[in-house]
Amino acid sequence: MKTSRRDFLKAATVVGAGAMTGGVIKSCSAGAGKETNLHHIKEITGSRHTQLFNMSGYSAPKIDTVRVGFIGLGSRGSGAVYRMLNIEGTEVRALCDKRPVAVEASRDRMIVHGFDEPALYSGDEDSWKEMCQRDDIDLIYICTPWDLHTPMSVYAMEQGKHVACEVPIALTLDETWLLVETSERTKKHCMQLENCCYDFFELLTLNMARQGMFGDIVHGEGAYIHTLIGHNFSKFDNNNPTGNGYIDMWRLKENYNRNGNLYPTHGLGPVCQVMNINRGDRMEYLTSMSTNDFNMHKHAEELAEVDEFYLPYTEDKYRGNMNTTLVRTLLGRTIMIQHDVSTPRPYSRIHLVSGTKGVARKWPGPARIALGHSWMNDEEFKEIEEKYTPEIIRRVGEMARSVGGHGGMDFIMDWRLIDCLRNGLPVDQDVYDSALWSSITPLSEWSVANRSGSIDVPDFTCGSWETNIPHKINLEEGGSTGVRKVERVLESIQLNV
Amino acid sequence: MKTSRRDFLKAATVVGAGAMTGGVIKSCSAGAGKETNLHHIKEITGSRHTQLFNMSGYSAPKIDTVRVGFIGLGSRGSGAVYRMLNIEGTEVRALCDKRPVAVEASRDRMIVHGFDEPALYSGDEDSWKEMCQRDDIDLIYICTPWDLHTPMSVYAMEQGKHVACEVPIALTLDETWLLVETSERTKKHCMQLENCCYDFFELLTLNMARQGMFGDIVHGEGAYIHTLIGHNFSKFDNNNPTGNGYIDMWRLKENYNRNGNLYPTHGLGPVCQVMNINRGDRMEYLTSMSTNDFNMHKHAEELAEVDEFYLPYTEDKYRGNMNTTLVRTLLGRTIMIQHDVSTPRPYSRIHLVSGTKGVARKWPGPARIALGHSWMNDEEFKEIEEKYTPEIIRRVGEMARSVGGHGGMDFIMDWRLIDCLRNGLPVDQDVYDSALWSSITPLSEWSVANRSGSIDVPDFTCGSWETNIPHKINLEEGGSTGVRKVERVLESIQLNV
Repeated sequence: MKTSRRDFLKAATVVGAGAMTGGVIKSCSAGAGKETNLHHIKEITGSRHTQLFNMSGYSAPKIDTVRVGFIGLGSRGSGAVYRMLNIEGTEVRALCDKRPVAVEASRDRMIVHGFDEPALYSGDEDSWKEMCQRDDIDLIYICTPWDLHTPMSVYAMEQGKHVACEVPIALTLDETWLLVETSERTKKHCMQLENCCYDFFELLTLNMARQGMFGDIVHGEGAYIHTLIGHNFSKFDNNNPTGNGYIDMWRLKENYNRNGNLYPTHGLGPVCQVMNINRGDRMEYLTSMSTNDFNMHKHAEELAEVDEFYLPYTEDKYRGNMNTTLVRTLLGRTIMIQHDVSTPRPYSRIHLVSGTKGVARKWPGPARIALGHSWMNDEEFKEIEEKYTPEIIRRVGEMARSVGGHGGMDFIMDWRLIDCLRNGLPVDQDVYDSALWSSITPLSEWSVANRSGSIDVPDFTCGSWETNIPHKINLEEGGSTGVRKVERVLESIQLNV
Repeated sequence: MKTSRRDFLKAATVVGAGAMTGGVIKSCSAGAGKETNLHHIKEITGSRHTQLFNMSGYSAPKIDTVRVGFIGLGSRGSGAVYRMLNIEGTEVRALCDKRPVAVEASRDRMIVHGFDEPALYSGDEDSWKEMCQRDDIDLIYICTPWDLHTPMSVYAMEQGKHVACEVPIALTLDETWLLVETSERTKKHCMQLENCCYDFFELLTLNMARQGMFGDIVHGEGAYIHTLIGHNFSKFDNNNPTGNGYIDMWRLKENYNRNGNLYPTHGLGPVCQVMNINRGDRMEYLTSMSTNDFNMHKHAEELAEVDEFYLPYTEDKYRGNMNTTLVRTLLGRTIMIQHDVSTPRPYSRIHLVSGTKGVARKWPGPARIALGHSWMNDEEFKEIEEKYTPEIIRRVGEMARSVGGHGGMDFIMDWRLIDCLRNGLPVDQDVYDSALWSSITPLSEWSVANRSGSIDVPDFTCGSWETNIPHKINLEEGGSTGVRKVERVLESIQLNV
């Protein structure tokens, strides 16, 4: 009864083609790392590009009411809809998911709360395109499986829409450059939804760094250390569309034979912002090292012994458990990024900021700061926190904690995005950041496969990093958007937000 | 009044030649990184060696009373003498330091405590050789500046003495191989005094790993993060021979233009022991990345403005502030090692042990252990600590805390060394470990200078790692040596122990 490797790959291909890519571009990594072309990665890092238009610092025309269309209404997308309802100056105009049940669940919630009926798109693999073609939508908000992120983002921009897309926004270097070129040509924002940039301690340390409290920033560290082995092996339940399983085991497949840092942006984003990467400094080269896999394959075999569904997942190698990637910048600073989702470890994104005058570190908790040889005590920490909490948290922090979404950071992110669009301000994470942060995956994959040799990191800004200015997260501009509290009365729908 | 670069190098060379090397071998790194030959480092990693005799697991003839001679009686060496007095079955037979005042201080302390007068060697650059030639000494204990470690260790073994030498025991790959070949030919132990292998939490995690509590060890981390910028720039005071300054600013000079991990062994040693490196697995290759220097050169300039003594130290580059090195082993495990002694950061050696069943981490404190998704609470931690505290700590832990020396670990180290020699047991850190752990410095230097390219790590065991067995630190053998409490009555001597 063992499924052969050939049959499995065939099945995987069908699944890939059957997904919502719609022919715009075929991600080469979805579900089958075998297709990754390492030579091509190296080639792309040496390719020359000319900037068509500088999207860093770009102010798009102001939008008084931001009309949003959502694609992907699983666990993550349905939560995003709920958060958006809490932000004034927005209108959820359309919802799309290939599963009708998912679309209806979010629609029902809106109706109960007294919102206007949104347009619904479902049932067809290409229905998301129809939604993007509407002329009454300003922003497409994407929460689909990883391999659909770039195709959908590109298509939406081509249809004249700004884009906000979940992480990672791209899986290959081809995709990163396609995003950059499309955003520059269409002059549409292409923001990766890196929510960790909006977490409370991360914003505190960003503000402190901007005020010079850490001196020259010398080194930063980030990570995604999160035990997901059970999660990644769990089956999707079609009757629970907002549950935790992944359709066609797509997330497990990413861990199947593609070896590098698969999920770099959560740890990297906040550190890049502190270090003003793409705005005064840029990544120059990186090197990456992975361990072997010591338990994922074994786990697949244990599952397959009692459930043949898992047999195909016992046939090849898994990514190594732990990946560590080192990046050096042109100004001679370094960033360390780690990834481990399979060994039993307490959650950590590290978030270390180390400078000539001080250091901050979030994990392992409690978060701490030192401006000398010792970590501050509680009293000193509170004093610093009160003094340096940035304006954005004072403005919407309480509401964010109340609405929720990873403790509030998701709400702060959405609110800030909407506020930027409404006030015609540059978005905090532009297409260059989106491309750069996601490019770590293919670059690390190349390095791991080449005995941890170092590889150049593309300059997606094409030299404009030298004059681009830091983003104004601390409400130096904007801040006019209000919030409204939508009570969570629909627990019976069991939306996992 | 500015000293030229040429004059400074000339002066540095004179100092180097004037030191105690005695012509045995000239370290190429002492004080002047300019002399480092990167090409030579790469060449050496490819050189072939044949093991003359396997020193791993080697049992030397038992020594009932271990007669010790000390070289180097500064801050570190004088403390070592004091600790040795507290261990039964030892006799401090001879003391050597080129400064008479240092020799006399340790001698006086011994006399007051009622010990026999030791032989004294001083005043001459080569007096340490005379001491090594004595036929009534079993062990030479070396606490001199780094560049003298290998020449003295080699000479002592050639004179038929076992060697215990401070870290790092070697500065170049030539030195590491010289140590290995000399130890094998003379069948004398050559133990690097990596005291951190004997710290309490490190021994706890080692014992837990040996009992399988962490499952397969996947990844480890160590560091030397210790703000020493003031320390390294402080002048030596000849009237306070056991004070903190360094003769001829030798330690500052190591930071002067030699770029890599200068001090890898404290973080690396305990992790290597947990991972049984050289005993079932071996390092295969490494990559290393340094930041630029953001404050050492600036600090030198600030000092030079008020004191021309520092002028020569403003003339060239300093090592980058932060170095991160990644090592991959043949079994597909990884080790991350960091070094930062110049930015203001709370002390850390990290000591992370990550496996398929659990994880432990010492810094930032408190030390913690997780055998699931969360760190243990105090009660659970204490229970584990009680159950897995190794026998060696139960035996001498209390005495160690009382004698002191970095909280007790120095004493545990010395006691264990003496106990092994008295019982004819292999030492915990043999010459292969000594060579390997110190080799990280030149290897990382090569990688940093080559855009973080990866470089092979030599197999100092010449293949015997496959069959070498883990060391028996947990008193599976030995443990017969007693301790004696020597009161610290001589505070007036102001020995800094």
